[in-house]
Amino acid sequence: MERWGLIAGRGLLPLEAAKGMRLMGISPVILGVKEETDPALAEALNKAGFTVAWESLGQLGAIRRFFQEQKVAKVVMAGKVGKEVVLTGIEMDADLKTVLAGLQAKHNDAILLALAEYFAKHGIEVEKQTVVLSHLLPGKGCLTGRVPTAREEADIRFGYRTAKEVAALNIGQSVVVKNGMVLAVEAMEGTDATILRGGQLAGGGAVVVKVANPRQDLRFDIPVIGPSTVAAVIQSRAAVLAFEAAAAFLLEKEATIARAKAENISLVAVADDFPN
Amino acid sequence: MERWGLIAGRGLLPLEAAKGMRLMGISPVILGVKEETDPALAEALNKAGFTVAWESLGQLGAIRRFFQEQKVAKVVMAGKVGKEVVLTGIEMDADLKTVLAGLQAKHNDAILLALAEYFAKHGIEVEKQTVVLSHLLPGKGCLTGRVPTAREEADIRFGYRTAKEVAALNIGQSVVVKNGMVLAVEAMEGTDATILRGGQLAGGGAVVVKVANPRQDLRFDIPVIGPSTVAAVIQSRAAVLAFEAAAAFLLEKEATIARAKAENISLVAVADDFPN
Repeated sequence: MERWGLIAGRGLLPLEAAKGMRLMGISPVILGVKEETDPALAEALNKAGFTVAWESLGQLGAIRRFFQEQKVAKVVMAGKVGKEVVLTGIEMDADLKTVLAGLQAKHNDAILLALAEYFAKHGIEVEKQTVVLSHLLPGKGCLTGRVPTAREEADIRFGYRTAKEVAALNIGQSVVVKNGMVLAVEAMEGTDATILRGGQLAGGGAVVVKVANPRQDLRFDIPVIGPSTVAAVIQSRAAVLAFEAAAAFLLEKEATIARAKAENISLVAVADDFPN
Repeated sequence: MERWGLIAGRGLLPLEAAKGMRLMGISPVILGVKEETDPALAEALNKAGFTVAWESLGQLGAIRRFFQEQKVAKVVMAGKVGKEVVLTGIEMDADLKTVLAGLQAKHNDAILLALAEYFAKHGIEVEKQTVVLSHLLPGKGCLTGRVPTAREEADIRFGYRTAKEVAALNIGQSVVVKNGMVLAVEAMEGTDATILRGGQLAGGGAVVVKVANPRQDLRFDIPVIGPSTVAAVIQSRAAVLAFEAAAAFLLEKEATIARAKAENISLVAVADDFPN
């Protein structure tokens, strides 16, 4: 069995990545990040038969040596990892300090790209998330029973254009719109908080759009839609949640779609050729 | 005395506009908007010797006829007015319905521009806010004692560029940044809520930047910095509040600057020639 590394960040994505690797006949060497990885995720990984080693995100050299000792040639990063380091000032080793010192901008993608280059320099290739998570990519079209109304369809297009512009600025992936107006834009607060804020300002009936950066690096930070996203949509009484068929991971697919259907929410996977 | 109209929206700006008109030897005919104008503002206007007539924002024809009967040739709009109409569905007369029906996008500037065109068609010119509010434009430079640090200066430049891009998309005027990262972007929730959100995510030391749209129409929606803005900056433990010297109104200037000084916050008025 080929050995690949997996750096497990926040959320449920690392579990899916480990399962995806196993399906591909690959043995994942999993590293939990002390500051980021949810203990519940580690438990779920253990329950599924995986073992998890732990290291602090600040100890980049130790992380790299761990993978080198385990003889992995490829690593997948799954789940959010990284940005808080810069803000909260955890203890950093010389390797991480050097990586960060070389950065002009310190947005998510810049940090992750620098980490990928660091691993590459030490003979470890960071592999695309989509390779091990292809089973989570939604099919194109409306995934729920209710097709968007003409007004909602117009807002999906407007929100898609706006979200792409915002994502291109490396600000965030999500916007909430209604009647051609932008109600909320995601920055560092995260998608769920953005949906709740925008949905409440809309007074119901909002359209949420989450997109990939137009220059998306498929190795990390691909948009994720999960139970908490749909819960936020329901709580804020929004009407539509749209995302990209080829660049969004849909977690707990059946349950998520069933939940949306029960609340009359349209989940819409927009195709690559969606007109701008 | 020449007679000009004043449509009084939210906040303290209409009082300043009325005072500015009086200083110019112009008699303001003031209209309060039932849905928007703060009763406390009306009281302050009354106390300053102005009278206020009232009309619903939905009754655009009645507003226009009121100004025509008062023989005003120019009208100033001061204080936020407009966008909520589209969302909350107040009763609209035929005139307003026609104005809104002609709009492609329903962002703030589009609505205000359409209203200005409606008034112009009926012989009433909407005058620039800066004409009657020039006394509120801050001078260039650091208005408080503490000059920004090198890191803060870099974040002001980064935030300025980002805010200009966001404003150009007609999303909002403010961003909160720290260490080259965008923490919060303003959409419809308003500046104060954006500052509080971004400042809390920063854990102190954030830089707030509020800018005019690069295609700013000087007749309406020029950025306003007031006591509540500085209070939000203080509450969120941000370090700097930057805005544009030629396109930002500073309300209660002396008190606002004194408050910022007492909290070691830098208020920075950036000049037109601020490098991009």
